[in-house]
Amino acid sequence: MVLTSTKTIKKTLSPIRWDEKTESVKLLDQRKLPYTYEEVEIKTAQEMATAIRDMVLRGAPLIGIAAAYGMALAAKAGEDLQEADKLLRSTRPTAVNLMWALNEVKSLQTKDWIATSSSTPRNDIYKEILEKAKWIHEDDIERSKKMSRVGAEYIKRRHFERSEKSNAESKNGALDSSSTSSPLNDNFRKLRILTHCNAGALATGGYGTALGVIRTLHEEGLVEMVYADETRPRQQGSRLTVWELAYEGIPVTMLTDNMAAHCMKKNMIDLVIVGSDRITANGDVANKIGTYQVAIVAKHHGVPFYVAAPESTVDRSLASGDLIPIEERDSAEVHTINDELVTAAEGVSYFNPGFDVTPNEMVEAIFTEEGLYEAS
Amino acid sequence: MVLTSTKTIKKTLSPIRWDEKTESVKLLDQRKLPYTYEEVEIKTAQEMATAIRDMVLRGAPLIGIAAAYGMALAAKAGEDLQEADKLLRSTRPTAVNLMWALNEVKSLQTKDWIATSSSTPRNDIYKEILEKAKWIHEDDIERSKKMSRVGAEYIKRRHFERSEKSNAESKNGALDSSSTSSPLNDNFRKLRILTHCNAGALATGGYGTALGVIRTLHEEGLVEMVYADETRPRQQGSRLTVWELAYEGIPVTMLTDNMAAHCMKKNMIDLVIVGSDRITANGDVANKIGTYQVAIVAKHHGVPFYVAAPESTVDRSLASGDLIPIEERDSAEVHTINDELVTAAEGVSYFNPGFDVTPNEMVEAIFTEEGLYEAS
Repeated sequence: MVLTSTKTIKKTLSPIRWDEKTESVKLLDQRKLPYTYEEVEIKTAQEMATAIRDMVLRGAPLIGIAAAYGMALAAKAGEDLQEADKLLRSTRPTAVNLMWALNEVKSLQTKDWIATSSSTPRNDIYKEILEKAKWIHEDDIERSKKMSRVGAEYIKRRHFERSEKSNAESKNGALDSSSTSSPLNDNFRKLRILTHCNAGALATGGYGTALGVIRTLHEEGLVEMVYADETRPRQQGSRLTVWELAYEGIPVTMLTDNMAAHCMKKNMIDLVIVGSDRITANGDVANKIGTYQVAIVAKHHGVPFYVAAPESTVDRSLASGDLIPIEERDSAEVHTINDELVTAAEGVSYFNPGFDVTPNEMVEAIFTEEGLYEAS
Repeated sequence: MVLTSTKTIKKTLSPIRWDEKTESVKLLDQRKLPYTYEEVEIKTAQEMATAIRDMVLRGAPLIGIAAAYGMALAAKAGEDLQEADKLLRSTRPTAVNLMWALNEVKSLQTKDWIATSSSTPRNDIYKEILEKAKWIHEDDIERSKKMSRVGAEYIKRRHFERSEKSNAESKNGALDSSSTSSPLNDNFRKLRILTHCNAGALATGGYGTALGVIRTLHEEGLVEMVYADETRPRQQGSRLTVWELAYEGIPVTMLTDNMAAHCMKKNMIDLVIVGSDRITANGDVANKIGTYQVAIVAKHHGVPFYVAAPESTVDRSLASGDLIPIEERDSAEVHTINDELVTAAEGVSYFNPGFDVTPNEMVEAIFTEEGLYEAS
């Protein structure tokens, strides 16, 4: 199987774009990465719902953007907007950004909208929703950049504090050249960062949440290595994260999902950062299955665990993570890889929860575009 | 891809057998499971070394048995026995049973052996080594059965104690019909057991260590469900454990390697049991990569974590697990599945430690054929 060379793709990595000429959405088919860089055209809200459900695209912020464009397509075609809203809302129950984006579109609602149950294309409503979708899209990139700055500054400060402490300690004893020191010092040791799933440009409007923080740190020359969990069953880590990071020349090493604890014990990881699909009022974090396991082993080894997500991921209507609906996906995902049967036996059952919940006490800090939530 | 029907295989599950007619070893090619049930013929020590290294067979006790038969083949061909011993010893550095079995063969050593550096087939030595190899093989099955009995009794007692306690508690309060109770009671709740990798008939002479304990509990009607971790990168869980359990009609559900913590949080797992490749004098346990991670999350949720292994796995020459050599395997295993490229991108690195070490304080008890070691 031939891989798509990251060097031959000239475009800026963009998982979604509105094509003005065709008045349709172009989605990068993430299921085909890293083998093929292929865009699919989405012309109706129905097609968009199917694309979201089948994971042509994924990632909480990106799902929100896609749903907003889906509403624009429904308006363009003069479809029943309430039906389209309902259909898009049903695609992925765990990601709250989807609900947020559809609520943003709904907030435009006037009496006119109710009348659009009839199938008359209404150009003014179409234009209004399309503008909103574009705003959500651009706004997401801005938010990603802001939260990445928040996260990078926090991590640098914390790392610097540690180095200061370490410097102070070495003044009291023999100089330990292997200890980390101030970023201004030549001895400064760059960061080794573990991430799970894909919270990158491919999960957002185009810059990334957790990978956005990593990008920002990398731009400042502070990243030694990113360790990316494979993230079975759908391999968002080994298919998307490693591809996206390699694309930008950020050093990356792939791990299978059972190696994190061993790597932490061997002192190979300085911090963990992940994205989120929903954060409850108390700071519990729903994210891709496996995140909770990484958080436990990070806690066990004293490795700080961070979350980066836009404010739209915060669901203040839910008191705690126990209340988050966890999507259970098709068991075929567990016994196939890239739609190829790789393991199975007659009479075997499969369990496939799409997400898990990490309790707030395991999260050192949550970075958003508006600032940070620290463990209290 | 067509799966091998477990129903069409009539034979008792045996991963290795000595064929008297051909005077060679027949190995079940475990790399082809669950697709094909295919035996390969091994005629020389060199072929056996290659089969061990390429993982035609795997599992610490089975590797030991195979190496002993390998020595018999070398003697039969009149090869240099010291060279054959050295070659077989080098195949898998972490499994100590390999060294144990080869030492058992070496213990036959007489002056005659030294003379066998010349290439003269010596029928007496061949017969002697072959008898030893057969003894190691049969002995392993006996040991597996004994340790399975030790483990099953311990788990029943512990589970029974809990039930007794729970019964005592319910006498003091309202009767809670959902609580577990004595095995003699109808309300007794069967066990939900998580295992990692394959420590079954396919990893031993034919009965299994961790899966041997599970088999014994199942024979007594005490198993509700076995949860089997996929065990990337080589999928011993999803290819071998689920196949082996389904073959015997033991209920089994496959999980990917990142789901254990979520399942424990949801109260789906009563205990964890795994095998081992080497146990040090202080009770630290080397086993397939990912075991340590499962042990941490089990500890976090108060789920008991057990190890079943023959005494030959215990390496008293090493004080602690830090001293165990950890085999680092080819990175291709990480980015391929069943030798098929499933994920990769240019410029990405891969890390592939074959094993990890679980510290003794995380292990509730170790079951061997001679009894049990409890956490002190």
